[in-house]
Amino acid sequence: MIARIVEEALDLQFHVEHVSDPRAGAVATFVGLVRDHDPSVEGRVVGLDYTAHPDAQDVLARIARAALTDDVLGIAVSHRIGHLAVGEAAIVAAVSTAHRAEAFDVCRALVETVKAELPVWKREVLEDGSHVWVGL
Amino acid sequence: MIARIVEEALDLQFHVEHVSDPRAGAVATFVGLVRDHDPSVEGRVVGLDYTAHPDAQDVLARIARAALTDDVLGIAVSHRIGHLAVGEAAIVAAVSTAHRAEAFDVCRALVETVKAELPVWKREVLEDGSHVWVGL
Repeated sequence: MIARIVEEALDLQFHVEHVSDPRAGAVATFVGLVRDHDPSVEGRVVGLDYTAHPDAQDVLARIARAALTDDVLGIAVSHRIGHLAVGEAAIVAAVSTAHRAEAFDVCRALVETVKAELPVWKREVLEDGSHVWVGL
Repeated sequence: MIARIVEEALDLQFHVEHVSDPRAGAVATFVGLVRDHDPSVEGRVVGLDYTAHPDAQDVLARIARAALTDDVLGIAVSHRIGHLAVGEAAIVAAVSTAHRAEAFDVCRALVETVKAELPVWKREVLEDGSHVWVGL
C-alpha cells in the first residue's frame, strides 16, 4: 500500500506498478489535475498552492487502509502539496482488483473520501498574481 | 480521440497524455489485465490469445465517438489483440473532464460498452498448453 503526502511531481505509472498483481484483472486510476478555470472566481487560474495539516499523512494512511478490503489486491494513493501549475496532478490513486466493477467502485470511493476528509487546503494563484483560498 | 485495435503493448501514460487539457480537472483511467486465474476452468492461465473481427476497429471508433459528449474533454481507448501474457494489458481507457464525477462515469460506461459490444474474442492458454475459448 502507498498512501503519501509528497512535494514532488506525482507519477501515475509508479502507482499502477505498485498495485500490479498476477491475480488482478482490473486497475482503475484517478488523476486530479489543476485546471485553468474556477467558475467562482474572476480571472484565469495559473496555479494552486496546497498546504497540508501535520496530521494529513496519518489521515491518508487511515483512509487507504480502510479501503483495502478483501476484494482489493492493491491500493496506491498520493496527494501532492506545495505549488502546482495548471495541468499538474494534485492527487493520484490506483486500485487493483480481480474484476473491474470493484476496481471502479473502490477507486471512486477512495478519491471521494480523500477529498472529503484529508486536511489539505488549496489557495488559487490567479494570473494577476493575487491569491484566493478555496473551500475554507 | 484515440480508438485503436493494436498488436503492440498498451501504454497507459500515452493515453493519459493524449487526453490532457488545461481545462481538465480529472482523468479517470482503466486498465484491463490478463489474470492468472479463471474460476470457470481448471488449471492456471498463462496467457490469452485475442482475435478481432475485421469490423472491430470501426466499432471501437463508434463507441468512443458516442462517449465524447459535451462534458468530455478527451477520450483515448485501445484494445490489444494477439498473444498476451499474465499481467499484460488487454484494454486501456482514459477520459478527461472538468470534474471528477463525469470522468468516473464516462470511463466506466466506455469500458462496459467496449466489453459488451466490441467483436473481440479471447482464448485462454493454460499451463498444460491447452486452450479454452472464453465467452463464446
